[in-house]
Amino acid sequence: MIVVMDADCNEKELQEILDLIDEEGFEAHLSQGIDKQIVGLIGDSAGKEQLQERINSYNQVDKVIPVMEPYKLTGWKFAPEKTVIDVDGVKIGGENPVVMAGPCSVESKEQILETARVVKEAGAEVLRGGAFKPRTSPYSFQGLGERGLELLSLAREKTGLKIITELMDTEHIEMVTSHTDIIQIGSRNMKNYALLKEIGRLDKPVMLKRGMASTVKDWLLAAEYIMSEGNQDVMLCERGIKTFCDDTRYTMDLSAIPLVREKSHLPVIADPSHGTGRWELVAPMSRAAVAGGADGLLIEVHPEPKNALSDGPQSLKPEKFEKLMNELEKLNHALSDIDDSVSPAV
Amino acid sequence: MIVVMDADCNEKELQEILDLIDEEGFEAHLSQGIDKQIVGLIGDSAGKEQLQERINSYNQVDKVIPVMEPYKLTGWKFAPEKTVIDVDGVKIGGENPVVMAGPCSVESKEQILETARVVKEAGAEVLRGGAFKPRTSPYSFQGLGERGLELLSLAREKTGLKIITELMDTEHIEMVTSHTDIIQIGSRNMKNYALLKEIGRLDKPVMLKRGMASTVKDWLLAAEYIMSEGNQDVMLCERGIKTFCDDTRYTMDLSAIPLVREKSHLPVIADPSHGTGRWELVAPMSRAAVAGGADGLLIEVHPEPKNALSDGPQSLKPEKFEKLMNELEKLNHALSDIDDSVSPAV
Amino acid sequence: MIVVMDADCNEKELQEILDLIDEEGFEAHLSQGIDKQIVGLIGDSAGKEQLQERINSYNQVDKVIPVMEPYKLTGWKFAPEKTVIDVDGVKIGGENPVVMAGPCSVESKEQILETARVVKEAGAEVLRGGAFKPRTSPYSFQGLGERGLELLSLAREKTGLKIITELMDTEHIEMVTSHTDIIQIGSRNMKNYALLKEIGRLDKPVMLKRGMASTVKDWLLAAEYIMSEGNQDVMLCERGIKTFCDDTRYTMDLSAIPLVREKSHLPVIADPSHGTGRWELVAPMSRAAVAGGADGLLIEVHPEPKNALSDGPQSLKPEKFEKLMNELEKLNHALSDIDDSVSPAV
Amino acid sequence: MIVVMDADCNEKELQEILDLIDEEGFEAHLSQGIDKQIVGLIGDSAGKEQLQERINSYNQVDKVIPVMEPYKLTGWKFAPEKTVIDVDGVKIGGENPVVMAGPCSVESKEQILETARVVKEAGAEVLRGGAFKPRTSPYSFQGLGERGLELLSLAREKTGLKIITELMDTEHIEMVTSHTDIIQIGSRNMKNYALLKEIGRLDKPVMLKRGMASTVKDWLLAAEYIMSEGNQDVMLCERGIKTFCDDTRYTMDLSAIPLVREKSHLPVIADPSHGTGRWELVAPMSRAAVAGGADGLLIEVHPEPKNALSDGPQSLKPEKFEKLMNELEKLNHALSDIDDSVSPAV
Repeated sequence: MIVVMDADCNEKELQEILDLIDEEGFEAHLSQGIDKQIVGLIGDSAGKEQLQERINSYNQVDKVIPVMEPYKLTGWKFAPEKTVIDVDGVKIGGENPVVMAGPCSVESKEQILETARVVKEAGAEVLRGGAFKPRTSPYSFQGLGERGLELLSLAREKTGLKIITELMDTEHIEMVTSHTDIIQIGSRNMKNYALLKEIGRLDKPVMLKRGMASTVKDWLLAAEYIMSEGNQDVMLCERGIKTFCDDTRYTMDLSAIPLVREKSHLPVIADPSHGTGRWELVAPMSRAAVAGGADGLLIEVHPEPKNALSDGPQSLKPEKFEKLMNELEKLNHALSDIDDSVSPAV
Repeated sequence: MIVVMDADCNEKELQEILDLIDEEGFEAHLSQGIDKQIVGLIGDSAGKEQLQERINSYNQVDKVIPVMEPYKLTGWKFAPEKTVIDVDGVKIGGENPVVMAGPCSVESKEQILETARVVKEAGAEVLRGGAFKPRTSPYSFQGLGERGLELLSLAREKTGLKIITELMDTEHIEMVTSHTDIIQIGSRNMKNYALLKEIGRLDKPVMLKRGMASTVKDWLLAAEYIMSEGNQDVMLCERGIKTFCDDTRYTMDLSAIPLVREKSHLPVIADPSHGTGRWELVAPMSRAAVAGGADGLLIEVHPEPKNALSDGPQSLKPEKFEKLMNELEKLNHALSDIDDSVSPAV
Repeated sequence: MIVVMDADCNEKELQEILDLIDEEGFEAHLSQGIDKQIVGLIGDSAGKEQLQERINSYNQVDKVIPVMEPYKLTGWKFAPEKTVIDVDGVKIGGENPVVMAGPCSVESKEQILETARVVKEAGAEVLRGGAFKPRTSPYSFQGLGERGLELLSLAREKTGLKIITELMDTEHIEMVTSHTDIIQIGSRNMKNYALLKEIGRLDKPVMLKRGMASTVKDWLLAAEYIMSEGNQDVMLCERGIKTFCDDTRYTMDLSAIPLVREKSHLPVIADPSHGTGRWELVAPMSRAAVAGGADGLLIEVHPEPKNALSDGPQSLKPEKFEKLMNELEKLNHALSDIDDSVSPAV
Repeated sequence: MIVVMDADCNEKELQEILDLIDEEGFEAHLSQGIDKQIVGLIGDSAGKEQLQERINSYNQVDKVIPVMEPYKLTGWKFAPEKTVIDVDGVKIGGENPVVMAGPCSVESKEQILETARVVKEAGAEVLRGGAFKPRTSPYSFQGLGERGLELLSLAREKTGLKIITELMDTEHIEMVTSHTDIIQIGSRNMKNYALLKEIGRLDKPVMLKRGMASTVKDWLLAAEYIMSEGNQDVMLCERGIKTFCDDTRYTMDLSAIPLVREKSHLPVIADPSHGTGRWELVAPMSRAAVAGGADGLLIEVHPEPKNALSDGPQSLKPEKFEKLMNELEKLNHALSDIDDSVSPAV
């Protein structure tokens, strides 16, 4: 941590700051400049946001600049190697990107079983489908709830696909975890810290979607909430951020994929369906994400998008999904031939 | 709702859409243009997001454009007049802006009692103070919890100030509501719909902070979640949004204040402390918010910002707060003399 | 400037950096930490972006952090006091906010003379009106050109109002400056450095609008381009930035007003017409800007907005403008009574 | 164009609007709803922004919604097929992505010739290099000017590479065009309409970079400024937009690549060097861009980034560039095998 102060700052205030630094167990190094003076803190300041704020509150302090990244467990520093999450045989974070596909919402037995059948056939390994849906309007379809979870379990039984579905609140933890293989934490809940802490005490893989107004740093800190409670099986998912650009539903920040690979050992998934909001862009953005190093894809597929109860405009029809899976296979083949291709920055 | 399609679109698909519109109880009006044709839906389409998405999923549909605002209870349409929330004598939404002031976090008995005393003396009517704190890092100070709530109750007893404090999860509803006069829902939880619904079943005023990536429309829909469950005592609070602009902590969207006044009958509060993140900007932005029509202010005041456990850099010292309260009094006086000054757009 | 490196970085690279710092005339201070080491540069590093980039290109450099603000002439450091620009008797930056009002575009003799008459009568001191219009589409009305400038001169002659109009390119410098009292540089040209430099060589006041994707820092650096060529009569104008928020045309960053007051001695104007894009919000945002410390307002007024050739939706009708001017007078009176009210942060 | 009005709007105002529509040569269709009534305009309303604004200025008009895309020449409607720009044998927009590489700025004869040699050897077809540099601060290196252009010509002579370099103002048009094969219009000048019009009268290919606050729609309209003056050889370049996300220099909006492919027949290039600002992300984002359908890449390469006078932190060293070129070759091979892979949305 570095403290920048006016060169001619009041001696008394400087001394107070030096005392505070000492009390907190850091060593201080002073560099006196012409207009500014700089105090460097020596010691492990990760997680010392509070000290940073206190120093920043002094009148004569210009700014306090953190030097260390604020996350610990999500970073590479103490990780021997890249995390591979084994979901009952499906390996996420390993050599091949894993495709998770299915409808936005579970709507009926026929719909989910039919979708499961086609995505399985096309090569997907995980079935996605929402039973509890976070909707902007209270008057929109809110999901089938427990009945939806039961249908997902049934689809797993019939196809062998693993299940991923969203958990929206602490109240339904037991119900959701008893049916799903991977818990999805949605974008709107990325900073629902009470929920993150509860999830951290479970023994179940989690996919943490990026908040639509979150930097990569804040996203890794949200993962840190889960990991610091014990659960290490966390994967991240880029799903688009809010920007001025209204040509697409969100702006998919694809550079977050290689950036997470550089900063963290956790697997990172891309969701081009939410990221763009338009089915026409799902195939090119899926190829782009995989070429950029994604460990997996989350793709909305619906047998009849026009009858979908949610997110129809961004859902692929089965035949388009199948075509995309073929393209991805060729792409993976080329990428596997590229040395380090999916781990560029490590 | 308006559906835009290619002029030469397939008859069969057009018919399917017309049938769907009919099934849902709307009447359809067709306008055939040169390149495009337009289908207008006649009927109350507020809250019909699902129908909108289904139609939008048809291949030959270019776009679906909602015509009505999607909110009901928060809008002016069914409201006889502006909502005034009576918090045991303190009227929010009435003639004079209400000032809510206090520390970011409750830290100790001395700190909260001393702050309560000074803000009361300067003219504040409500005491703010966090007992449960949503922090970006799990390693930051998370608040005193129940002990903090008890100290707030004690401060109310000693000063007569009303209390506002944040509720972060459904688990603590009873504990928090037994101590507070106004429940604060923070920016990070604006889309925590499970929490909003629970709050909607209570008989206690709520202040709903704007999500940092939320439009005014989404914010009013979040309020709609609370109101549609029964609780009508909702006030809104603008606290800054996320933009590219890093000169301030957030970008305070002051135009949201008169815009909410135009769209909704609910009171709207401004939080210049979080909105700017710098105490130097709190006084001018407080004056600006009141001149722009705010029904109240939420201001961080700390007796010793440099010893604050959170948000020191944006907290006012007691003497600066007192000076600001004097300025606001003069300003209110001038504004009261201005016809319609706080309700410009109605 | 501070350089952050890994603690165990290569000696050779560290030495190269130290040599480079020495060559450039700075003194280096090293602080060796546990994970990181920090090199502080002592000396005036304002304007040393290039050195910063060169150091940042070393493999083992984590980041380079500037300590000094990068602007010189726009900052307070060498300014004895706040700049007041005297436009032939109209003082901008002085005690009272100056109102500049008029149509978006000059459209006809009748329109501009009639508008000039009504804004003069209501108390405006400067007449705005575009003769050259920057339009998003090449098929939109592009302004009357020289004829528009002549009509502005005529309006000045008839009313005594000063004139402000936009200059879009170096080609028309002579033509525009021969008719206008203040040159307006629009948001789209804030980073048109060739134009800024030419303007810097003139002896004519300039109003520099903020770029819609520019931080306050970049904006002050754009002003620095003008001032470093000689022209010191620069005023700034906040007119809204691009954000995700589509409730208004732009998001008016009102906190930029007191922030500029804190960082710079230059006057700062607010443009609520472009900032919001909706006439309903112009009056409350004008009041807010003045209460927040603006040195002036730029307001679109049109005798018949529905016949305007551009920006009708954000133009005030004469009677609403007059009402606003009355409100502002009362507000100014209250603010003048507030000690330091328009210079909060100095 | 669709006009939305209150159902109970004033007859007189409605009639005025209908008359206006008629005058402008459109036919009006009315749909009377319960709360709203809708007027549809039949006729070609592309480029009718002015009429849209006029109607929007009526008091009783809620909003005016354009139905047609506002661009003409850049859209697919009148284009028989995808544009392929032939730069003296190098085909941009054809089957294979074209790589343009070189330093940010031309700095010296040795630097530019050495860089030209290595990028040519690695397979690049166009040499990039700035002679005139748009810099945020007036105190930063501004480029070698004419001397830089001469060095680029020399590099072409020695290597056979085509040249791309930036033109910043109308004054240097002749000088720059006499040396370059492709004129680059930078992000800061995307809305410098005077410059765009001049370029539109030349017979020389242009690369138009996206403005950092521009939607895809505005970007295509800027291209329309050039094309409507005659010059049809326009390619677009995505180079990152301004968002809240400070993990990278800009946020590269990769979805703009397939979106431009869907909306326009113009070739689209990706610039991952500016888009991310960090050399570590250039290789993965280059692969992603090509897999997402880019017609080319613009990549900063510098023999010694740490001695670069600008943009060192985002420049690749020659050996890393060579490795990337090998990867891209494998990727192209896989993509060529994918039916329609680079033209997904057409």
